Amino acid sequence: MQTIQTEPLTAAAFAPFGDVLEANGEFRLINDGMCQRHHDRAQLDFAAEVGPGNRPGISIFNAVPRALPYRFDLIERHPEGSQAFLPMTEHPFLVIVAEDCAAKPRAFLTNGAQGINLHRGTWHGVLTPLQAPGLFAVVDRIGASPNLEEYRYTQPWTVLA
Amino acid sequence: MQTIQTEPLTAAAFAPFGDVLEANGEFRLINDGMCQRHHDRAQLDFAAEVGPGNRPGISIFNAVPRALPYRFDLIERHPEGSQAFLPMTEHPFLVIVAEDCAAKPRAFLTNGAQGINLHRGTWHGVLTPLQAPGLFAVVDRIGASPNLEEYRYTQPWTVLA
Repeated sequence: MQTIQTEPLTAAAFAPFGDVLEANGEFRLINDGMCQRHHDRAQLDFAAEVGPGNRPGISIFNAVPRALPYRFDLIERHPEGSQAFLPMTEHPFLVIVAEDCAAKPRAFLTNGAQGINLHRGTWHGVLTPLQAPGLFAVVDRIGASPNLEEYRYTQPWTVLA
Repeated sequence: MQTIQTEPLTAAAFAPFGDVLEANGEFRLINDGMCQRHHDRAQLDFAAEVGPGNRPGISIFNAVPRALPYRFDLIERHPEGSQAFLPMTEHPFLVIVAEDCAAKPRAFLTNGAQGINLHRGTWHGVLTPLQAPGLFAVVDRIGASPNLEEYRYTQPWTVLA
């Protein structure tokens, strides 16, 4: 059995794949000091030069929770846009990514107060909440051209707790 | 005392002000049927024609929770962009909006599984979570030009529970 151990999600470890969106580091105080604004944390990229009608949009995803150990054999990527997953809960979720199809995938576990933004073209697993509700706001490319590539591993991977 | 009673947040009632972002109505099934995609729910508008450098971004806001009754005398609006508030919790939050400076403000209470997208130029109160953590992902305009107008009521309003 091919296995993957989960890692905590940190900006440094996740840098090859995308941005970690969380309330840490520098911020501006707004609203008379009542609110921290952690400004402009995601590298949004909707490839307007590739598909002229491409634009950003916000969709709501509601996914069935999975459990660890979690077995998968499919990864996917979106050549025409970055994709941000913003949990509408305080539950940690699983983030599977891969540098390329030949590399061993990595599995990050969020801390319950983190979203992610996958950079355009990053290989990743499907959305995998670990508790209900599996509710996320998603900022990704809206457009008419094809924007999904899939890769199936010859043998499945199992993510361990 | 000038008072406002809260109303439940519904798409119909909120339509003059913005979009309600929630997992209801039509969706596409993706990920082998494991995920509902409620597609493209927000009217994003970053006024590229007004400020040529304007673009969307994702910021993380961390606001101090307030309590009801809640007293305020300030509303604000952003002439150069829509602004989406996506709670990273399952807590209801308060959404204060106004049709214009002369109109009585309205106060909506979310149901714990709703985000909002304020249309460009909509008068609104500052971010008012009602429980900790007051953590939100915010999709709004990133740019160099001024993007804040404020209006102060001569007498404060009090939002009742």
